Amino acid sequence: TINADRLWDTLMEMARIGPGVAGGNNRQTLTDEDGEGRALFQRWCEEAGCTMGLDQMGNMFAHREGADPDALPVYVGSHLDTQPTGGKYDGVLGVLGALEIIRTLNDLGIKTRHPIVATNWTNEEGTRYAPAMLSSGVFAGVHTQDWAYAREDHDGKAFGDELKRIGWRGEEEVGARKIHAFFELHIEQGPILEAEGKDIGVVTHGQGLSWTQVTVTGKDAHTGSTPMPMRKNAGLGMARILEKVEEIAWSHKPHAVGAAGHIEVFPNSRNVIPGRAVFTVDFRSPDLAVIQDMEARLKTEAQKICDDMGLEVAFEKVGGFDPVEFDAGCVTAVRNAAERLGYSHRDLISGAGHDACWINQVAPTAMVMCPCVDGLSHNEAEEISKDWARAGADVLMHAVVETAEI
Amino acid sequence: TINADRLWDTLMEMARIGPGVAGGNNRQTLTDEDGEGRALFQRWCEEAGCTMGLDQMGNMFAHREGADPDALPVYVGSHLDTQPTGGKYDGVLGVLGALEIIRTLNDLGIKTRHPIVATNWTNEEGTRYAPAMLSSGVFAGVHTQDWAYAREDHDGKAFGDELKRIGWRGEEEVGARKIHAFFELHIEQGPILEAEGKDIGVVTHGQGLSWTQVTVTGKDAHTGSTPMPMRKNAGLGMARILEKVEEIAWSHKPHAVGAAGHIEVFPNSRNVIPGRAVFTVDFRSPDLAVIQDMEARLKTEAQKICDDMGLEVAFEKVGGFDPVEFDAGCVTAVRNAAERLGYSHRDLISGAGHDACWINQVAPTAMVMCPCVDGLSHNEAEEISKDWARAGADVLMHAVVETAEI
Ligand SMILES: NC(=O)NCCC(=O)O
Ligand SMILES: NC(=O)NCCC(=O)O
Repeated sequence: TINADRLWDTLMEMARIGPGVAGGNNRQTLTDEDGEGRALFQRWCEEAGCTMGLDQMGNMFAHREGADPDALPVYVGSHLDTQPTGGKYDGVLGVLGALEIIRTLNDLGIKTRHPIVATNWTNEEGTRYAPAMLSSGVFAGVHTQDWAYAREDHDGKAFGDELKRIGWRGEEEVGARKIHAFFELHIEQGPILEAEGKDIGVVTHGQGLSWTQVTVTGKDAHTGSTPMPMRKNAGLGMARILEKVEEIAWSHKPHAVGAAGHIEVFPNSRNVIPGRAVFTVDFRSPDLAVIQDMEARLKTEAQKICDDMGLEVAFEKVGGFDPVEFDAGCVTAVRNAAERLGYSHRDLISGAGHDACWINQVAPTAMVMCPCVDGLSHNEAEEISKDWARAGADVLMHAVVETAEI
Repeated sequence: TINADRLWDTLMEMARIGPGVAGGNNRQTLTDEDGEGRALFQRWCEEAGCTMGLDQMGNMFAHREGADPDALPVYVGSHLDTQPTGGKYDGVLGVLGALEIIRTLNDLGIKTRHPIVATNWTNEEGTRYAPAMLSSGVFAGVHTQDWAYAREDHDGKAFGDELKRIGWRGEEEVGARKIHAFFELHIEQGPILEAEGKDIGVVTHGQGLSWTQVTVTGKDAHTGSTPMPMRKNAGLGMARILEKVEEIAWSHKPHAVGAAGHIEVFPNSRNVIPGRAVFTVDFRSPDLAVIQDMEARLKTEAQKICDDMGLEVAFEKVGGFDPVEFDAGCVTAVRNAAERLGYSHRDLISGAGHDACWINQVAPTAMVMCPCVDGLSHNEAEEISKDWARAGADVLMHAVVETAEI
């Protein structure tokens, strides 16, 4: 079993980089803080005897030798970037859990047949650069690297430039590595495991996602002197569409969800009726047909609302992935590990997207989840217990070692 | 009559400072561009033989000598600051119209008994620093100077510091000047004059305003893995309140208006359910009781919406003024001037707030309005014709000269 105190101390040390304002983290992708976190991770990996690889998307691969020179590596990891007001565990637990496995195997003097590679995927969160899971997506061939490099943040800074600026643009071709299997440990970010008192979620599926950026265009005008009937209030149009988003998501209860996390109006002045509103609708479901239905209804309803109000509306898909079914063999390895170690467990559908969802397209993949307090994530108050971290990393290690073979 | 070509050229030259992105202006208060605009105005005034006064709020007073050393000056002006995506005439016409009067009187060799003071009031727009009409408000004793200095912009920069930084914090005590009368020429910013083919609006009243900043607090959480029933979506709460704002304003048809021009959600990340939404509701009516009713209903309705959704809501009044009745004598001077010059005119209630609304509390005050295309303002496409500018400045001059006495 892994060393839970060491894992915990490692998590807390990483959390000192890019502290948030309320106990969590703001270590967004390709910021200086991201660079600092990467350097620390690299140091730790090298101290544990690994060799660090870095590809052209900044994905980091800490390689621990295997016994068989011909065996493909088992990859294990997640992401070190955080939300602007994110928690200390989302992603980080999966990367540092991978490191902890390597440290434990070192302690025990165990050499696996397949090499083990602790991995940090760049820009999983997707806040600064949409879409989420950008670099695992390029690795899996879902996006081209040129397209990814051209993504811009809110200030117009391109992904490729910022990756170079922080010094983490590598030479290695992205996706060239062949993967024997990939495992990702992650906090659940939902309430099910805690509510049912389970230690471990065996992730069999991931729900799909659709991000539609909606732009409503009306006409900037004075809030005082423009008569109500003459107004083309893009902010009000947005408000009406947001109500529909809620209605559409509920209509597929219990399994669909919908919300807009990103909302802006222009020129955003107290005495100017918004002439433009831009917001991103996030719809998810484990059922592709449901996602497609929600997307279509969003467009129909938004068009109707805007037509009625004399507004223009435009849609741009800025992110999306289909529902995922993880590899049966890898899932069984996770379930068996939990069983063998005596941890209570249940099968889960991941509510969030993960790098594992893309890597699943190019290699046998599965995920391990542990509970988080109140199911809360993407919030600085995100919390887990050391015991939950221990259980997750233990199961991760056993699944990885079984797959990497002793 | 004034020199319309010269007035127009002067307007166009000022519009070169702080150009917008779509033909208008972005010369927000206390920016470097505001400083540049002020310097140009000062140069023009000094070239016209005036002496420039500057008070501790940055209000500018270009003094043209009168014949009687004991007579109080007639003040005439408006503001040079603009919206972030503002027009070339809102405020600017009133300030440069005042300059044009002085130039015309110089050309004609006319000396009035009372001095004439062309005035530029600081921060009329209220976008960068709420409330609007801040410095005329301090002049009129409505706000204290300390309170005004402490106002902060979006980046936390204090008004007092920024005023000093751009070099336009004067020594003169604010509000110490005694005013014989104040006249302000402004574009209507509404559709009435153009629709009725009138040259001149004789402004008898101004509607009152209430700005309530609403903060809705829910809980940041993951958009994917948080089940719909567990959400506390502050953005959705805001959307529902915005719908009520519209409903409340319409319920007082035809004279009340309402909208939110300022809208923000936090942390504003595509995959985070907004834990907080902050927006400012702008309600206006010529009837104080209506404004009070709208304010009260906003609070009741918002509280109800938020209670139902498990959200918290808080209200802060960030701006407001009561409906205004302008001075009968000054209004008559404006109406007589229009009549005498043969311009078509009608009485108007100003839909927007103006510096004149505050100055009216300390001196006899009135306003002259001219049409603007499609009633459009607070939009870079704001437009007027040279003939409209001519009519407005002519009427302004005649009202001012009648009051300043030859
Ligand atoms: N795990 C996680 O929060 N990933 C970000 C992508 C998503 O929004 O699901
Ligand atoms: N005239 C004008 O747009 N003033 C700004 C204050 C207001 O919003 O009415």
